[in-house]
Amino acid sequence: MKRINIDSTRLWHTIMEMAKIGATPKGGVKRLALTETDKAARDLFCFWAESDGFEYEWDSVGNIFVTLQGKSKNLPPVLIGSHLDTQPTGGKFDGIYGVMAGYEVIKTIKEQGIKPSRPITVVNWTNEEGVRFTPAMAGSGVFSGVYTEEEIYNSTDNNGMTFKNELEKIGYRGHRKSVDYKAEVYIEPHIEQGPILESENYKIGIVKGVQGQLSLDVSVTGFESHSGSTPMNMRKDALVSSSKMCLALNIMATEQFPGSVATVGKMIVHPGARNTVPGKTYFTIDIRHPRKDILFKMESKIKQHFQNIADETGTKVEIRKAWFTPPVIFNSICAETLRKSAEFLGYNFMEMVSGAGHDACMVNNKVPGCMVFVPCEKGISHNELENASPEDLAAGANVLLYSVMDFAI
Amino acid sequence: MKRINIDSTRLWHTIMEMAKIGATPKGGVKRLALTETDKAARDLFCFWAESDGFEYEWDSVGNIFVTLQGKSKNLPPVLIGSHLDTQPTGGKFDGIYGVMAGYEVIKTIKEQGIKPSRPITVVNWTNEEGVRFTPAMAGSGVFSGVYTEEEIYNSTDNNGMTFKNELEKIGYRGHRKSVDYKAEVYIEPHIEQGPILESENYKIGIVKGVQGQLSLDVSVTGFESHSGSTPMNMRKDALVSSSKMCLALNIMATEQFPGSVATVGKMIVHPGARNTVPGKTYFTIDIRHPRKDILFKMESKIKQHFQNIADETGTKVEIRKAWFTPPVIFNSICAETLRKSAEFLGYNFMEMVSGAGHDACMVNNKVPGCMVFVPCEKGISHNELENASPEDLAAGANVLLYSVMDFAI
Repeated sequence: MKRINIDSTRLWHTIMEMAKIGATPKGGVKRLALTETDKAARDLFCFWAESDGFEYEWDSVGNIFVTLQGKSKNLPPVLIGSHLDTQPTGGKFDGIYGVMAGYEVIKTIKEQGIKPSRPITVVNWTNEEGVRFTPAMAGSGVFSGVYTEEEIYNSTDNNGMTFKNELEKIGYRGHRKSVDYKAEVYIEPHIEQGPILESENYKIGIVKGVQGQLSLDVSVTGFESHSGSTPMNMRKDALVSSSKMCLALNIMATEQFPGSVATVGKMIVHPGARNTVPGKTYFTIDIRHPRKDILFKMESKIKQHFQNIADETGTKVEIRKAWFTPPVIFNSICAETLRKSAEFLGYNFMEMVSGAGHDACMVNNKVPGCMVFVPCEKGISHNELENASPEDLAAGANVLLYSVMDFAI
Repeated sequence: MKRINIDSTRLWHTIMEMAKIGATPKGGVKRLALTETDKAARDLFCFWAESDGFEYEWDSVGNIFVTLQGKSKNLPPVLIGSHLDTQPTGGKFDGIYGVMAGYEVIKTIKEQGIKPSRPITVVNWTNEEGVRFTPAMAGSGVFSGVYTEEEIYNSTDNNGMTFKNELEKIGYRGHRKSVDYKAEVYIEPHIEQGPILESENYKIGIVKGVQGQLSLDVSVTGFESHSGSTPMNMRKDALVSSSKMCLALNIMATEQFPGSVATVGKMIVHPGARNTVPGKTYFTIDIRHPRKDILFKMESKIKQHFQNIADETGTKVEIRKAWFTPPVIFNSICAETLRKSAEFLGYNFMEMVSGAGHDACMVNNKVPGCMVFVPCEKGISHNELENASPEDLAAGANVLLYSVMDFAI
């Protein structure tokens, strides 16, 4: 088998072109799902597919499929992909890399004049980030039958706009039901979004699984009162109560549950006036661990701790489960194929568990799936400073290329 | 001197009419300065003045003056007033009571056929609350020469709109400079906004002075990172750091500085996404105490504590002074006049220090001033549940009536 390579410069170029859409002054990207910038990125992706002579279409929840046809059109495709949406202050690589690496792979195969036995399809999943609409991984979730089209359609953003209307507004609501799409195997390339590969000097991570994630919504109710004339001992300050909860959570994850992470990422303080003791807060909790039983144990500790804090501070607390993504174990044959490709190409690699959730967690419920990671600078992600080297990105795409050919040729 | 009374029912009615403008579903009022609702309240006030045959005008920062003319037009008036703007989830009485009580007093004097020797003017001060535009007490501050017109004009709201443009937009930017207006004496009636009068069973509070208030802006900078793949010990979480600061402040006020109050009323968490460790927060601090030296001691302790917390958590903290209102001692002759009126009318009264800042704090810099308080239910204020009894409101207005006549007849 003669050694072929993806075009590293071209891959870098497509990623940089995408990064212009929703570019932030600090070098990051803001491209929230189903906004005008998301539409622009989708349009560019479809424009490239059209120009390069690939077939493309989108399904009922806006997942875009770009296909290099195989000898047999009827066999389920090898599916590669990730997402084009970003965090509010996201980077150039999270998600985008997976879509662009997949696209570079089918371009390379086509240019090499190789006709695969089955189709190879690159997918952009809708709303992976879950920032504007919850839940996250919405498009891949519907594809995989984890969420119904209906529940995703009805999700609303902070302005009360529904997913369905916003999807229609940008013109990416397709006719064919997402859940009816098939695939033989799914591979998702991604930057690691953590510091391990870089610090241990590996080029490739073969991802065996993903941590479970439990997401909670918390609201704390105290009593609004005047900040000048309400003595300290007569206050029911929702923010003081929430601050205690935030710290209790931090200590729990740091000291009591090794290997776990816990984050309060969003907090809204009501009424939010300088002169008023806060009467209400709303905040989110995101906890992750490779074991489901540990996550549930953490959840129960949180409920107990928070109730105690509420009682001490004269406030009320309500805790609601926003979503739970169980830990994922990827398909071992897929992982083995990635491992063999990395070995063949001479890249040093390690096997690892992902700290972040990915569309692959959803897709793996329906299609045998796995992921390949490449290092990102200092492990920084969900940040405008997110960075990765062209060489590492190319290495991951080459591992993808060989693995895809293994399945599709 | 024959005993006359204000019309308690009419006073209640005008307050309830005003409460319809910006009424909230929970029975409160949202009427932020220079919004359409503020305009509507101003329009109604001017409409009443017009209908009842009073002179009215507004100055360069939108303070509205409604005048019952005296025998001599050229003597500086007895000034009575407060404000029509509210907190975002404010009540029906804070501020409004003072304007409506003043208006009821001039109506009563006019109906009694009494011609005062000097004018009696009721004023609505612009932007007392300082919610939409900082600083608070802006209109009375310019009147008193504490702020320049220019600095108030340039203040911007969260959407970048300037005070000046917004004032012009609602049509209340007058030609005559606020600082050129004169007055002989200023009396501001107000609900107590605290629990003391009610719990000690007094109808009237003679306010000798007001606590000093120091307002700080704090921003904490950590580092945004992915909530799933950033181990706890590698985080620089701006919200964890801020939560520690919020609690340190609370403990400081509660345990180390008796008689002080300290509040974090507003907090914004950036980027505010469920999956991202917060990289930045901004929050406000409001501390109050009757002594200036204690306030400055608290400020210095805050800076020291917060710097330590920032160092521990790997974050950076910046603390900026938003405003400082020194403790106020009201004019003793004014207070004595109020006391004599309360005595004459047979109301039980106490002398007290206000926990909240008021326009009177500003005006007292230019014009001898003082305040009269009436009880409010459970001391609740800056809250939609704010309440007061028609009898108590009438008692305060009668004390005002007699005091005003003492100065103006």
